[in-house]
Parts: sequence; structure tokens; C-alpha cells
Amino acid sequence: MECKVKRFGILTSGGDAPGLNAAIRALCRAAKNQYNMEAVGIFNGYRGLINGDMKVLSENELSGLIAQGGTILGTSREKPFKNPVVNEATGLLPVEAIKENYKKWNLDALVCIGGNGTNTTASLLFQSGLNVIGLPKTIDNDIEGSDVTFGFYTALDVATDAIDRIHTTACSHGRVMIVEIMGHKAGWLGLYSGIAGGGDAILIPEIPYDINSVAKKIKERKSSGKNFSIVVVAEGAKSKEESLLDKKSFKKARAVMQCTIGARVAKELEEATGFECRATVVGYLQRGGTPSPYDRLLSTQIGAAAADFIAQEKFGNLVAVQNGKIKPVPLDYVAGKVKNIPLDHPMIKTARDLGICLGD
Amino acid sequence: MECKVKRFGILTSGGDAPGLNAAIRALCRAAKNQYNMEAVGIFNGYRGLINGDMKVLSENELSGLIAQGGTILGTSREKPFKNPVVNEATGLLPVEAIKENYKKWNLDALVCIGGNGTNTTASLLFQSGLNVIGLPKTIDNDIEGSDVTFGFYTALDVATDAIDRIHTTACSHGRVMIVEIMGHKAGWLGLYSGIAGGGDAILIPEIPYDINSVAKKIKERKSSGKNFSIVVVAEGAKSKEESLLDKKSFKKARAVMQCTIGARVAKELEEATGFECRATVVGYLQRGGTPSPYDRLLSTQIGAAAADFIAQEKFGNLVAVQNGKIKPVPLDYVAGKVKNIPLDHPMIKTARDLGICLGD
Amino acid sequence: MECKVKRFGILTSGGDAPGLNAAIRALCRAAKNQYNMEAVGIFNGYRGLINGDMKVLSENELSGLIAQGGTILGTSREKPFKNPVVNEATGLLPVEAIKENYKKWNLDALVCIGGNGTNTTASLLFQSGLNVIGLPKTIDNDIEGSDVTFGFYTALDVATDAIDRIHTTACSHGRVMIVEIMGHKAGWLGLYSGIAGGGDAILIPEIPYDINSVAKKIKERKSSGKNFSIVVVAEGAKSKEESLLDKKSFKKARAVMQCTIGARVAKELEEATGFECRATVVGYLQRGGTPSPYDRLLSTQIGAAAADFIAQEKFGNLVAVQNGKIKPVPLDYVAGKVKNIPLDHPMIKTARDLGICLGD
Amino acid sequence: MECKVKRFGILTSGGDAPGLNAAIRALCRAAKNQYNMEAVGIFNGYRGLINGDMKVLSENELSGLIAQGGTILGTSREKPFKNPVVNEATGLLPVEAIKENYKKWNLDALVCIGGNGTNTTASLLFQSGLNVIGLPKTIDNDIEGSDVTFGFYTALDVATDAIDRIHTTACSHGRVMIVEIMGHKAGWLGLYSGIAGGGDAILIPEIPYDINSVAKKIKERKSSGKNFSIVVVAEGAKSKEESLLDKKSFKKARAVMQCTIGARVAKELEEATGFECRATVVGYLQRGGTPSPYDRLLSTQIGAAAADFIAQEKFGNLVAVQNGKIKPVPLDYVAGKVKNIPLDHPMIKTARDLGICLGD
Repeated sequence: MECKVKRFGILTSGGDAPGLNAAIRALCRAAKNQYNMEAVGIFNGYRGLINGDMKVLSENELSGLIAQGGTILGTSREKPFKNPVVNEATGLLPVEAIKENYKKWNLDALVCIGGNGTNTTASLLFQSGLNVIGLPKTIDNDIEGSDVTFGFYTALDVATDAIDRIHTTACSHGRVMIVEIMGHKAGWLGLYSGIAGGGDAILIPEIPYDINSVAKKIKERKSSGKNFSIVVVAEGAKSKEESLLDKKSFKKARAVMQCTIGARVAKELEEATGFECRATVVGYLQRGGTPSPYDRLLSTQIGAAAADFIAQEKFGNLVAVQNGKIKPVPLDYVAGKVKNIPLDHPMIKTARDLGICLGD
Repeated sequence: MECKVKRFGILTSGGDAPGLNAAIRALCRAAKNQYNMEAVGIFNGYRGLINGDMKVLSENELSGLIAQGGTILGTSREKPFKNPVVNEATGLLPVEAIKENYKKWNLDALVCIGGNGTNTTASLLFQSGLNVIGLPKTIDNDIEGSDVTFGFYTALDVATDAIDRIHTTACSHGRVMIVEIMGHKAGWLGLYSGIAGGGDAILIPEIPYDINSVAKKIKERKSSGKNFSIVVVAEGAKSKEESLLDKKSFKKARAVMQCTIGARVAKELEEATGFECRATVVGYLQRGGTPSPYDRLLSTQIGAAAADFIAQEKFGNLVAVQNGKIKPVPLDYVAGKVKNIPLDHPMIKTARDLGICLGD
Repeated sequence: MECKVKRFGILTSGGDAPGLNAAIRALCRAAKNQYNMEAVGIFNGYRGLINGDMKVLSENELSGLIAQGGTILGTSREKPFKNPVVNEATGLLPVEAIKENYKKWNLDALVCIGGNGTNTTASLLFQSGLNVIGLPKTIDNDIEGSDVTFGFYTALDVATDAIDRIHTTACSHGRVMIVEIMGHKAGWLGLYSGIAGGGDAILIPEIPYDINSVAKKIKERKSSGKNFSIVVVAEGAKSKEESLLDKKSFKKARAVMQCTIGARVAKELEEATGFECRATVVGYLQRGGTPSPYDRLLSTQIGAAAADFIAQEKFGNLVAVQNGKIKPVPLDYVAGKVKNIPLDHPMIKTARDLGICLGD
Repeated sequence: MECKVKRFGILTSGGDAPGLNAAIRALCRAAKNQYNMEAVGIFNGYRGLINGDMKVLSENELSGLIAQGGTILGTSREKPFKNPVVNEATGLLPVEAIKENYKKWNLDALVCIGGNGTNTTASLLFQSGLNVIGLPKTIDNDIEGSDVTFGFYTALDVATDAIDRIHTTACSHGRVMIVEIMGHKAGWLGLYSGIAGGGDAILIPEIPYDINSVAKKIKERKSSGKNFSIVVVAEGAKSKEESLLDKKSFKKARAVMQCTIGARVAKELEEATGFECRATVVGYLQRGGTPSPYDRLLSTQIGAAAADFIAQEKFGNLVAVQNGKIKPVPLDYVAGKVKNIPLDHPMIKTARDLGICLGD
């Protein structure tokens, strides 16, 4: 099929996540096969678009990408609309430089792959007149408008494997182990890995916790002969007291906290139970490595669909997934939002049914 | 909450699959926690129900099950309604023995976990007057009425890992490698692992193949400088000629085939292309081992929901998943059917968009 | 074969490590098969021996243990000879209680599985008159007298996988990533995982580091177009300045250090290079989970050999491995020592040959 | 250090195995760093050397290779000394073409990485006057003169994982499962994976089997309440009757065998025990994928040592490992031999101690 768009740019932005390369491969192949479009790779996120750091991608560069972690295009956290400053050499604002490069490279469309920040910027660029499409990538699964994001299920594999391993230590030593899982704003990864890893308590940002509830659960297990417990804590977990703070006060409180949230919960629990508690932070491992088959399929499907979006000129949209189907969702609806776990989510009910303590 | 059902039986039947133990654990825990119901484990599928080989399950036996492959209850392919014979010692038909044991053990409900065969039997038992609920387990993902079945995504991990490994050999030796993946009736596992593993051609039961199409694809790759190819073949793949046969003739033709379908495709391709082709059968590995986090969550959610089904007396239903939500689907709708990949399924479109040959 | 020993006790002590259960299984099976000896499991390390918390192990309890992480016997860091106190109820010192229980349970021998601390205690118990045999278990690989210890290669798998994952993030973001690996006293795990994970610099206790050497390496990589680097840091890594401190002063200096050594190195490197540096601590994951085939074989071989040691009354020895063969090594030679990496070790030469910076 | 050798060729030959790329990387880097030597990559084994298909390798091409399966140089089973024919175009025999290309490309040395066949050819080339060094690669671990070969431990991981997975199926279905593992001539992989995977019987080429011994073991397990068994069969396993045949008759007998050895053992066992027996062939999976940390370290160490061998002009040798140390072993000693498991090998004793049936 022929279409008006002859050439599009593609960039990856924000924290890296498994599936980025698979999405790039699928988009470029589908665009070439279906519509004979040419892809221009933009390096290091929006920074490369500002600086004109880009090149035409050849089929050869796409081979073997489906199983490869990270992003061959590189990434950055550059935000062209946040505190923009005029470049001294060129006299241009970031958004002006972007427009110049977009024109100079004869781009008819621009595909931005990333999380909340990336798609918020994508929305602004669309409003600035560029033909932008967004793709939902994040291990946090917190992009509004899409049921799922690629990167999430691979991170879930890593987080669950970590909890599994810690399980054997907890059990052998008769200890309470606290495992800190990524997720500053939303608790998807914490909740899912906590259930999958057989956690006894799971603390997530969506449900402020009372340490005494957690302590009670651990003591009950002890009474019933189980002398160890696993407590999974999302980075963004907060106590009931903290949940009463406004955003600014909360940020300030956290900034002066001398330890990780996992370590704090360990200390609180040790005081409340008298048992030995140890914390571990799974950390950056959750971002890297080869994407799981689930994420390869998801990013491939989304990438291939993005080619259709371009050809059909569905600009200003996120290539979202709803009920297992690809759907366009306006970027200005997505922008600036965080998709939290609704309190009536079936997985929260499942956790409660199993007797897992959610901190409340 | 209190409910009328005080005690239920639980059995696993058919081929084993990852997630069975997780489902047992979730069901028994949720049933106890939510409704104070007692679980009776029935050993080795319907065989144990016929022979009265069963025991009350204690909380202790449920610990650590979420990550454990196989089924602690054992399984069999016993089909009480297929060619039933009277037991000489008891003078009872299988279904009569089942009813006796159901009564003798004071069961108020029966949960049958398995695939198509298991749920067909479950449907017949429901029609015979027992309070039956079915759970969708199979690595084949081919149960009608449920979008997904537990076991499938773990098998996908194994199959994809196998294709990944074979990729390096194919590439190093410049060979065509044929990988045979489970799936006698439906091609879900073959299609999904084929895309995720970066396969160049994928042959599934739903799309009868012309070996010349596959040969053409491989030769095109060779011409473009790629001297290896991966062909993924589902067990149930058939040629266009075979697809014209009636079911009986097809079965007969296959029975006299001296090799696996993978080996046959390898031979056909070697003749059609002149390139070195080697086949490998991934086999039983696809069934076993610890369930992936995805399958742990799915089987846990389904297991916990089954407790609600029992308490709410939603008998005669499969605990199905539709659009990410638990839904009751009548067992008599499920019985005797196979869920094939619809030809307009998005993943088939995705494969074609990427230039993957589907054999047609 | 018959032998004098009819019954022996077995305990696991110190930090848990993969392979403990495989060793227990092999020892008990070989002891039963070869010599008809009976095994008594002692719970939670030396604590169970002091308290008489033990039971005869049956064949049934050994099934499936080879692949199971942790220890079915539990473990503790109890050290009966360190600051011993008389038990108020019994009026006995720990070592007296141990002797009483040893006698009361009709033990003819005692097998202690653990690391440096465990085998030091084992040596003292042997000197106290018990028929003791030690088994070398530790992920740190730092037991004097044995070329290798079980647990090490599984931990190496986990640590290397972590570095692999962090590699993709480092590369995608163009960052310097610091990965902290276990090893307070010896650098085996850090050195081996650092080489296997493709680290650019590796800091281990055996080679005090100069941060400027590391910074130089990273800057050279940048100059040659590689905009990321991986620095692997063992927990016990120390700077050249710190290496001049006596043991007490060093401990004190570390006690007041507000962050992990990995975080400190990150800070130092950021200052010395001006590049973005991020630290991650792999932590407890390195201890847990199913043992790798290598460790299953090693612990099985050592466990089975321990049965021979008992039957041949080679008491007071560690079941060590030297040049691939089992050798008895006197526990009093092992006690109180740490096996560090010799500076002329081939793997250190290999690292230097490849241009890896070792901090000096 | 400077040395006489300025430039060397490098090729990989025979079946691919994990660690080839890591060895290439280590050799080329060490050769450059230590001795400023230049590496010429030769494509597709000896075929590329005959055809002059080669190119100078740059540092850039070595990045990221340590974790990559397969071989970037490609491989073939070309044997220049076996039934050599004069090339019509050039009028040269293969060995003459090799010498011409060696000269034309200014090679001072040649490194051949491979198994028994490769090193036998390497030995002949050395005798023909080239400065050849061999490196021991094979998943079969059967190269005479080296305690271990790279590729073996990764294949062991894959084979053991396969047995683990089949374990859960065997146990759930109460079946006898036969698992066929690679190893036509030597049983290392079968024996090691069999022990590591908890096999109940292990059949290897070194110990001809009596099917009745295996049947007895399985029946004993049944009697003691264990209703499943795992039988691990190396490809080269043979019955006592077959072991009496001369090599030619044996080959003929196998050529007409209509099924795999695993399937044959399954059939024999089903007849001898009356239990349901199923066979599975692990196959090509054992060759591919990312090398394990053990193999990365081994191939890196061997690769780096090969640079020293070249510089020190230790030509005509295999870079072997003995008792954990690198040793030169003359290629003419290695050539034409297969390293079988000695019957007094400690791992055979370990298997017997544990009660594993070895078929005799």
C-alpha cells in the first residue's frame, strides 16, 4: 500500500525498558513492508532531535533486535518543554531546533517511544504542529489509557525471581525479609510480583500502610508455626501519616529520609514485632536484559500497529492496548497522568482473598 | 462470609501444566479464608474420584505451592464417560462410583481443573447432577470461552527460549532449522513463540501450508544475504493437500507417517530449496517446571475466583477470563470445542506485517 | 559395607547457600546405601544442637531436594564458643549441652555444613572430643584448603545475570553503572562475575584501589567512543588509604560510612570523571534459589564423600576439593582463616590481559 | 611486549558451542593489548581458509561478544584433509589453497577453535608447516588432554533444566520419562546432567546397559511408593549386546534403527516393566544460547592464554586446562582421540553411592 508519509523519525526516551528494540524493529519492518516508508533513527531521545543527531536506519540494523535489551537508539531524560533555554550558538529554543531538524530531515511523522514524560512531551510536540505518535513503554505499567505497557512483564519476571530467591533465605534463617520493588508512583510491579512471589504483605502507593497491620500479619504467621515472612514494598509506598501530607511536604520528608523505604519498613517492623528484619532493594536489574516473550509480542504488535497509525495519519495518538486490542488514545488525554491501581482492581481482591496483608 | 457449601472436592486432570498447584493453593486458601469451606483433594484426576482416592487438604500442604510445577494431586487422562465399563468388584459404572464417592465424602461441590477433555467431562458430570465448576488449564490455550488459559505463557517462555537457542546454531552454521512446537489442534503456542523467537516462517493448523511458499521465503532471505532461516512448525500443521482430507483420512495418513511433522517439513524444504535443513522437537519441556509470574497470577486469580463461584453456587460454569475479567461460561458451551486462532486475529496480522511467511 | 558408625548428626550453619539441601540428600542417601547409617537432622545450626532440636531423617524427606534452594534443616549464626553463657535452666555451658545431646541422641559422628565460622566451630568441637566432619559451603568461595565451595557458582550466575541486565541500561543511557557484589573479605565473586559480566573495572579487597585509575579507564573508554562503563565493586573493596588502616580503625571507618561501598565509589567516580554514575547493590539475591547444575554436582559429590569420611573415621577433617579430587584437610588448618585471591591467580592475569582495570 | 608474530588468523570449526565468541574476544583483545598483534577473522571454519574468505577484525567488532552465543565467524564441518579434491578453477588441493591464503594474508600464526575434528585438522596443518594453535571447544567435553572444554557447562545447564521440567510431568502423571541427551561418543553430558537432574538411571556409552537392570530399579522405586522415574540416555548409549559388535557393525545396526535411542529405551522399558514410558529428545537446544558465567570465564581464560601461546611460539599445541591451570598439550597427542569417562571417575562413584542405576 502507498501512503502520503514517506519518511518518519523514531526515538526512545526516558528510562530504558525491555522491548524498545523489538518495537523499533517491528515498526520499521512493517512500515517498509506495508507502506514502503523510510525510518530515520534519532539518537538519545529528544536530545538527538534537538541536536540533529540522527540517521536513516537500514534493514540490516534491525536483525536480531527482538531479543535484545535496551535500545539501539540510546535514550535520555531530555525534556524540551521544561525550563527551555535558548541555544547560544544557534539562537534557537529546543522546540524550534526540533522543528528545524524535523523539516531538514524531511520527516512526515515522528514516533516517540516512552513512558509518561515522553508521551507528555509528544503531546506538546503534536500541539506544536508535528505529526506525532506515541508508544507506551514503561516497566511501571502506569500510562493512562493503555491496559498494559511493554517492559512491565519482563520487569515482573525479574522482580518475582528476586522474591523467589529471597524466599529461600527467609525460610532457612527464619527471618522477615523486606524486598523493595520499583514503582515510585504506581504499585503495579509491587502488587503483581508480591502475589506471584508468594509475599505475605505488600505495600503499594495506592494503599497507605499502618505498620501495625503488617506486624500483626507477621505475628499471626509466627503463631501458626511459620517463622518467616516476606514483605514486598513498592518504592512509592507510604504510611497513613505520610498520605496526609501534601505533595510538597511529602517530597521534602522523603528527601531527608536517610534510607530507602524498604530499610525504613524493616526498621519499623523490627520495632513492632521484635523479629529480625532485613531489607533488600532489587533496583536497576528490573529495567534491563532481554525482553520476555510476552513483551516481545506486545512491543512487536504495538510497533507494527504504529506503522498503520502513521499511514492512516492517526497523529496525536498513543498506540494503546485496551481489552487486548490496539486502540488510538489521544496524547492530550494521556499527558500528565499516572495510571494507578484502582482499589476495586481484581488483583487487589485476589490478594485479599488469599489473606495477603495490604497494609490497611 | 458463610455459605451453603461446606466442603468441595478438587481434582486436576489431563496433561500437566504450570500453574496447577498455584490454582489449587489459591482456591483452597480463598475458600477457607472467605467462606470457611473445607477442601478435599482427589488424586490422579477422575480416576481418584472413581476409586475414592482422596483426602482432606490441610493449610500446611499449600505452603510453597505457588512456584511449584506439576500438580500435588497427580493427574490422569481417565475419561469416565468414554466407553464406560462396569467395575467387576463393585458392580458400578464409573459415573455411579463417582456419585457414590461424592456423597460418601460429603462433597457439596466439585472443582475440575483441566483442558478441553477435562471440562467436557465436567460438563457431563454437571448434567448428571453434581455441583461442578471447571477451571481452564492448558498450555495449548485452546479452551473455548476463555481468552487465555493458565500454563500457556510458561510454555511460551520455554518454546521461545528453545527458538532463541536454535537461532544461534542456525546463524553460526548457515542452516535452515525447523523447530516443532506443541499444539495438535490449535496453533497459539506455535504462532506466539514463532513471532517472539524471530521465526521467518510459522506453520500452524489454522493455515494449511504450501511448502513452496516457505521455500520462496527462505530463498529470498538467502538472496538478501541472510544465509539461515528459522521455521516454526506446530504439531498440528498440515499441508494444503492434507487439509482437504476428512478427519478420519487425515488421522490415518498421520498414523503411517514415519517421522514427526517437523522432520517432514525439513525433508520437504531440503528438496524445495537445496539448503541444509535440520529439525528439532521441543517436546515435553513445554509442559513442566515452575510457572512464570504471568501464569502464577492468572492461576491464582482464577483459583481465588473459583471459591466465589462455589459460594455463589454458579455451578455448571467454567471460571473463564474475558477482556481481563473473570466471567462464568457454561460448561456445556465449552464442552467438545477447540478454540482455534481466528484468521483475523491481530497476531496473524502482526506476523504478516513483519513479512513472516505463514505458509499460504 | 558395615562400619562402626551407626548414627550421625547433620547440621547447616551460617548464611544459607544453594546446594545445602543437595549435600544433605547425598550424604544421607550415600550413608544409608553404602553403610546403612542413620541420619539425625539438627535444626537451625548449632542452636539446635545446644537445645536438642533434632529428629531422625527419613528417606521420604530427601526426595526432590537436589534442586531446592535453602536448607530444610534451617540455619543460624549461633557460635557456641563465642562469649559462652551458662543456661539458667540447665546450668550448662553451650558446649556441655552439645555433648549431652550428642550422647543422648546416640550420635557417633557429627557433620557440620557451613563456611569459615561453621568450620572453625567444628574444629573446636572436634578438639572437645566429638567425631566431627566439616563440609565447605559458602557463596564467597573463601574457605582455606578447598579450591572451591558449593554455593559459589550459583551466586556467580546470579551476580553475572545482574551485571548483564545493568549492561543494557548503562549502554542505553550512556552511564557509568556501579554494581556491588557480595564478598566482605574475599573478592572471588566480584572478580569472577566482573569478568563474566564484561565489567570494565573490578574492585576487590585483595587489591586496594586508587579511584583515579578507575576514572582514567572510564575516560579512555569515553575517548574511544564507548560512552558507558560498568564498575564491579566487592563489598570488601577498599581504597589505598583505607588499606593502610589497622583492622580496628578500618572497621570503625566503615561503621560511620553513611552509604554502601558501591554508592561511595559512585560518588568518588562522579567527582573524578564528571560523568553520571549510578550504584546498585545486588544483595541477598546472590544467596538464594535453586542451585546450578555445577553446584548440585559439587555438593552431591562432597555430600556422598562425607559418608565415606564418616565410615573411614576421618574425623577432624574438612571434605575439601583440590585439583578436582576430594581430599581431607584438617579442620584446625582451616579454622580462623580466609582464602583470598592470590595476586598471581590466573584469573587476575586474564583480567589484566583483557585490559580490565583492577583499581591499581 | 613485542613479539615476532604480527598477525594471526582465527577460525571456529565444527558444531557451534557457547563460548566461541567469548574466546574470540579474549584472544583478540589480549593479543592487541599485550603484544600489539593483529587478528584476521576467517569465515566458516576451514572453508573460509580454503576460499580466502577472511577480514581483519577491529576492536569495535569485539564489543558485547562475551555474552553472545554462536560464533560471529560462522562455522562449518569442512575437513580439508578428508577426501581432498583439486579445485578445478585454481588447480589447488585444499591444503595448498590454505597455505596460499595463509601467505597471502601475511599470517604468522593460525588459531583453530573447535572439537576433536577441528583439532585433528589443526594437527595436520601444523605438520604441513603452519604455526597452529588449537583451542578446546565442545559441549561434549571429550577432547583428550584437557580436563574441561568450553561449551560443556552451558550445555549442562540446558540439559539439567530440561530434566527438571520433565521431572514435574513424570511426577504428576506417574510415568517413566526417558530423556535423551547429546553425546555420541562420550557420556559426560549425560552423566552430569543425569545426576544434577536427579535421574534414577543414567545410560552412557562407557557402560553398556542391560535393560533389566534399569527395569529392576524402576520397579523397586514403584514398590517403595515412588510411581515415577527419570531415565537419562546419552545418544551413544548401547546395550550389552551392541557393545560386542565391531565399530562397523554397530554403525550399520544404528543406521537401520527406525527411532532414536531414547525411543528405543522407552520401548524396551515399557516391555520390561509394563509401565507407561515416554521419550523426549532435548536436541539442538543444548548447543545454543548465551554462555554461562562458567563458560564465559573458561573461554576468556583460554582465549587470553592463546595470545601468550602465540607470542611464545608454542605452536602445535592445544591450549588445555589441567587441574585448573593452562597447559600446552601437543596437537598430535590430541588428534584422533576421544576422552571418555574413566570407569573409576569420582562422578561415577558418586552416582553409585546415591543408588543411581548406571545400567550395569
